[in-house]
Amino acid sequence: MAYTSPEKFQGIAVLDHKDWKNPKKVQFDPRKLYDHDIEIKVECCGVCGSDIHAASGNWGDLTKPLVVGHEIIGTVVRLGENCNSGLKLGDRVGVGAQVFSCLDCERCKNDNEPYCEGFVTTYGQDYPDGYSSKGGYADYFRVHEHFAVPIPENIPSHLAAPLMCGGLTVYSPLVRNGCGPNKKVGIVGIGGIGHQGLLFAKAMGAEVYAISRTSAKKEDAMKLGADHFIATKEEPDWGTKYFDTFDLIVVCASSLTDVDFNTVPNTMKIGGSIVSISVPEQNETLSLKPFGLKGVSISNSALGSISEMRDLLKLVSENNIKLWVETIPIGEKGVKEAFERMDKGDCRYRFTLVDYDNEFAK
Amino acid sequence: MAYTSPEKFQGIAVLDHKDWKNPKKVQFDPRKLYDHDIEIKVECCGVCGSDIHAASGNWGDLTKPLVVGHEIIGTVVRLGENCNSGLKLGDRVGVGAQVFSCLDCERCKNDNEPYCEGFVTTYGQDYPDGYSSKGGYADYFRVHEHFAVPIPENIPSHLAAPLMCGGLTVYSPLVRNGCGPNKKVGIVGIGGIGHQGLLFAKAMGAEVYAISRTSAKKEDAMKLGADHFIATKEEPDWGTKYFDTFDLIVVCASSLTDVDFNTVPNTMKIGGSIVSISVPEQNETLSLKPFGLKGVSISNSALGSISEMRDLLKLVSENNIKLWVETIPIGEKGVKEAFERMDKGDCRYRFTLVDYDNEFAK
Repeated sequence: MAYTSPEKFQGIAVLDHKDWKNPKKVQFDPRKLYDHDIEIKVECCGVCGSDIHAASGNWGDLTKPLVVGHEIIGTVVRLGENCNSGLKLGDRVGVGAQVFSCLDCERCKNDNEPYCEGFVTTYGQDYPDGYSSKGGYADYFRVHEHFAVPIPENIPSHLAAPLMCGGLTVYSPLVRNGCGPNKKVGIVGIGGIGHQGLLFAKAMGAEVYAISRTSAKKEDAMKLGADHFIATKEEPDWGTKYFDTFDLIVVCASSLTDVDFNTVPNTMKIGGSIVSISVPEQNETLSLKPFGLKGVSISNSALGSISEMRDLLKLVSENNIKLWVETIPIGEKGVKEAFERMDKGDCRYRFTLVDYDNEFAK
Repeated sequence: MAYTSPEKFQGIAVLDHKDWKNPKKVQFDPRKLYDHDIEIKVECCGVCGSDIHAASGNWGDLTKPLVVGHEIIGTVVRLGENCNSGLKLGDRVGVGAQVFSCLDCERCKNDNEPYCEGFVTTYGQDYPDGYSSKGGYADYFRVHEHFAVPIPENIPSHLAAPLMCGGLTVYSPLVRNGCGPNKKVGIVGIGGIGHQGLLFAKAMGAEVYAISRTSAKKEDAMKLGADHFIATKEEPDWGTKYFDTFDLIVVCASSLTDVDFNTVPNTMKIGGSIVSISVPEQNETLSLKPFGLKGVSISNSALGSISEMRDLLKLVSENNIKLWVETIPIGEKGVKEAFERMDKGDCRYRFTLVDYDNEFAK
């Protein structure tokens, strides 16, 4: 039976940043299906901190209806005329926070698509053709085939979803900065992304330190695979106690500005790296004394490459890693709940919106 | 004929930060000669920007008499009882900006002496025994044998001196960040240290870009080995023109705060490094938007290891690299001239104080 795309897609959208906690069910025009695009019937979608930033207006006034969601798992239901990546109808695939790049520049050719000048993010940004990208809180989704990757069979969809953005975002700096055996790696901020950082760093063979403000999440962190737990507010001398310890610290807290640069560099080995993976509010500024870095580098890292996404899925599949995910049925009510609970930090440790068939007529 | 150390050493010293441009000839008590110390009869000493910071009080109120100078070349005239590094009486050696560390911690054992907690700088800092270290604007100098390295025969003393601090300081981040063939390396700030950066990076096989505010030093930079020259004030669009160019930028300007973080990250390759080697004023603060780093790391680098100092001397010797040095006879008049000209930037590109035998009675 030939498949025909619906004329309109349906999604749960923010119509006004001021009223972002009351998203509405809407219909919207799909983006044109280009030669190398695929159409995905969405099965579930993770809820990322970025969704909250975008929905609430932290990242500026985005085009409405704003359909967020960039941790998308679904089934390929249509292939553009020239698709040649090997994806087939019926494949279960995932898409993360990037849907487009030139695929031709040095960055794209060297597995740095997230840094391509032609980068288009999964929602709220105009494609070159003027269409404002729309994400995975919707029944269907179209994307260039390069940005969709097959999901290994043994990873359940609701656990695969958060890997697509949050997981990849913490995995990329771990890989790029040598996380592995004989390395001491700190994960700062044990939340939706940080909890994945603990799981991955452990699976990669590092000695893993969970670093949080209080010991509230200690038990969880140890279950997730941390070898050590540091509660920075409860151990004010931790900078001295852990002198010269870390090869790498990945900051999964809201931003680099959460890092105490009077303390953290002391805990690093010379040549070590402090990497922030957060996307802060637009106007946030970091202040530090450059000499205080003491031979340690700081950087930020954005998403990860598609090649790294494949590697991550392999790591998760082979080590049977299970994220800690709570599912919420999609719909106006479900998205509202997800937004409100994410906004107040009531999430351990990731939400995936599910039951798409129930919400959207087949 | 047995050698006897003089009871007092003589030096040209700052006695008051307020009057730092009028240094005075003084006598002072030498530091005790410990088992592993050597005594050096100083032949010449480079003038480093740090000398100006320390003398003028930028780094706080230091113990007087303040004898600065940490680019010291001289002859070994006495060996402590247990010296075993292989140095012999009569050897020509160099000493840089570090005179002491524990030599026992992980950092010391891994060629990171400059980052040891027991670091003592060559002048103006108390040793563990309470003696305030005194530098090379003096006739004699004592130091732990670990921190003195032999100077290859074909490097003239006045050209070797600036390698000890300035040279090592720019060489270390070049080595540690992969400067070599097929790498594009930018040197920001073409001064005493930057001019050495150009020479070394070129000798190491990199494609070298001199980056300065104006084109005033273009001719010099090209003679020093730069393949390209960028005058940032004259090419306001250089961030676009040189998009995705550099693997490494070493900032030899006064500080990281001189770097335009709206522009420079654009010119870097993903994963590239911006390293500052400057020691800014105590209270200087760097402000930047962390997300603006775009996959690029920033760090500072302090000095270099003794092992790197040996490697640098080998590089300079084998490639017959010649620094651009102006010599000034030591004495109250000579140091005053060096201070004043350094302070106003009238130096191309390094001063070495010479004629020690003339100033200090034998």
